[in-house]
Amino acid sequence: MMDAAGPLSGVTVIDMTRVLAGPYCTMVLRDLGARVIKVEPPGPGDDARGFGPFIDGRSAYFLSLNRGKESIALDLKNADDRTVFEALLNRADVLVENYRAGTLEKLGYGWEALHATYPTLIYAAVSGFGQTGPYAARAAYDMVVQGMGGIMSVTGWPGGEPTRVGTSVGDITAGLFTAIGVCASLKDRERTGEGAMVDVGMLDCQIAILENAIARYAVSGQAPGPLGARHPSITPFESYRAADGHVIIAAGNDKLFAKLAHALGLPGLIDDPRFADNQARNANVDALKAEMEAALTGESVDHWLAALEEAGVPSGPINDVAQALDDPQVRARNMVVEMLDPGLARPLIMAGNPIKSSAYPDPSTRPPAPALDQHRAALLRELGLGEG
Amino acid sequence: MMDAAGPLSGVTVIDMTRVLAGPYCTMVLRDLGARVIKVEPPGPGDDARGFGPFIDGRSAYFLSLNRGKESIALDLKNADDRTVFEALLNRADVLVENYRAGTLEKLGYGWEALHATYPTLIYAAVSGFGQTGPYAARAAYDMVVQGMGGIMSVTGWPGGEPTRVGTSVGDITAGLFTAIGVCASLKDRERTGEGAMVDVGMLDCQIAILENAIARYAVSGQAPGPLGARHPSITPFESYRAADGHVIIAAGNDKLFAKLAHALGLPGLIDDPRFADNQARNANVDALKAEMEAALTGESVDHWLAALEEAGVPSGPINDVAQALDDPQVRARNMVVEMLDPGLARPLIMAGNPIKSSAYPDPSTRPPAPALDQHRAALLRELGLGEG
Repeated sequence: MMDAAGPLSGVTVIDMTRVLAGPYCTMVLRDLGARVIKVEPPGPGDDARGFGPFIDGRSAYFLSLNRGKESIALDLKNADDRTVFEALLNRADVLVENYRAGTLEKLGYGWEALHATYPTLIYAAVSGFGQTGPYAARAAYDMVVQGMGGIMSVTGWPGGEPTRVGTSVGDITAGLFTAIGVCASLKDRERTGEGAMVDVGMLDCQIAILENAIARYAVSGQAPGPLGARHPSITPFESYRAADGHVIIAAGNDKLFAKLAHALGLPGLIDDPRFADNQARNANVDALKAEMEAALTGESVDHWLAALEEAGVPSGPINDVAQALDDPQVRARNMVVEMLDPGLARPLIMAGNPIKSSAYPDPSTRPPAPALDQHRAALLRELGLGEG
Repeated sequence: MMDAAGPLSGVTVIDMTRVLAGPYCTMVLRDLGARVIKVEPPGPGDDARGFGPFIDGRSAYFLSLNRGKESIALDLKNADDRTVFEALLNRADVLVENYRAGTLEKLGYGWEALHATYPTLIYAAVSGFGQTGPYAARAAYDMVVQGMGGIMSVTGWPGGEPTRVGTSVGDITAGLFTAIGVCASLKDRERTGEGAMVDVGMLDCQIAILENAIARYAVSGQAPGPLGARHPSITPFESYRAADGHVIIAAGNDKLFAKLAHALGLPGLIDDPRFADNQARNANVDALKAEMEAALTGESVDHWLAALEEAGVPSGPINDVAQALDDPQVRARNMVVEMLDPGLARPLIMAGNPIKSSAYPDPSTRPPAPALDQHRAALLRELGLGEG
């Protein structure tokens, strides 16, 4: 179980997280070689253990997020369990938690207290709204920050119903920013000799990923709306109808646009003043789409994907999850890995690690996720706390 | 200009990136204190300099992504410019580039060559499909990997048109994973004394963020479809109609569901066997929505947001970008910062840094983005290469 080979080998993370933002962060750290020890509340443990779908009675969602982690159940209101927790902190490099702001402080494990006792510990807290500000004490979930943070206002179709991004980008981006904060603080600790607190709010991260929507608002004073399947300022850069489905075409400059016009058998587009440059194409986006689809709907998706690849025009299909996971490039990049667990009737597939390093192998399997409290005896032994 | 205070203070990054995935990564590194020197092709420089909208003749999009970076224009086919580039690499900790796989190799700066000459240099390449596999040589853009990677298949409305996530999550998540790879490698270098190559593909990152869509597919064998504005496995967790707009409600467990039922004046929901637990609520998602909306449409969004906050039920509005940036929590968290640039008639607003650290200040302003080649003379002087 212990350490895997990776740039974070030798780093020990105490993981008091549940469901998604926190566990996603510590999953990334684990994939980079850190040892991750989940400290779960006795009873149900991490809430995600109860979230379907289930495989052989266990949550596939929980298993995929918690691969290769260890687990110990501790009640932090119990004196014996606090002793164990403190012994864990004493040997740890990083503590990650995603409770509501103030929860750890009430237990006596706020940043000031932790820093005084464990001066080299890095403490990362990821929460809905962060540790400060008027909403700090409120709970938030992905759905809430997707709504508040603006991404839903630019996703979906003009005049249509509000649309959620189909994966939990509210949690996942917060997990990624927290992982960056942890790794940067680990690097900095080599220089300063001191730990630091990293405070990440999910809502803040939604603002951080709005990118050009903010730039457009800052310049025009108008809040941008949803644009269906197209890019707001690059044309053609959208999903287009072919005879039997849709094709994504992304021709971001004049050279690619000329290649595209030839590939579609529409060389007249090149000299059409409505489409002379990206700015003109953006102003005439509907007219261009009509011209393109008149040609595209004459042949199949497969026909056009081959023709556009041949022509060097960035393009692709709209894959469902099954097709995406079967894509030859995705397979060649080892982005579908298998969890090996004797308790499962068959290996469970899950996403691999997208950070490929020349210095470490990229295994195609993952160790099991822990049962609740599975590593208690081994951890107590290791900590010299008997019972083991 | 030089270093800002942050966990990456003292780290020098050579930044050969353009448009989004790469510049987003180096923006994050810069916000964490690294010095970032953009090496741009002479002529147009970073393509994003030409992307609207424009403020005082400059791209607001480019400015927001390249705040606080330095710029030098170098033609890597020119011998003198190669000398400058190599002098920069000699003093650098990190090289980040987002050219198509093989581009730097053709110029003699592939990983093997770089590692032999600059053994401590960390080389991070972020590209559409990564450095290996059958599509490695193809260009990709955000729109292409959103289509291929599966996220579009779970975003939007059942039976509706394909829907793009309204911000460039294909680029941004790749930028974040690359930043994690760079920071973890910097930490590891303290131990090993050696640099490493980090290879991140945008398509891989789309797979990495599919999370529960993969778990659902792995268990059922069925590719999941789009779900509009709701969560696939938690109910109620969706956008609901009120009298004058929509309210997001995320009541992820039985306790929150009971609070919600009381807040809506519908205590009968609690004992209704159709809604007895999350699994039952998920199976009867439409019936529950109808019951909830019958009550919710009787009052305004503001009424319900106040009532639900009072009741402790996670909830929120659907903000547009203007509302999101004006939110008191977003402001309190310093997530809207201003670029101070004497060349701009008024300060330009942009997203702040969501990684808050106890060890460093979180400034509310950002230094200007560079004009193309703005720092040539100063850099040459610093490198002892005359001309300055």
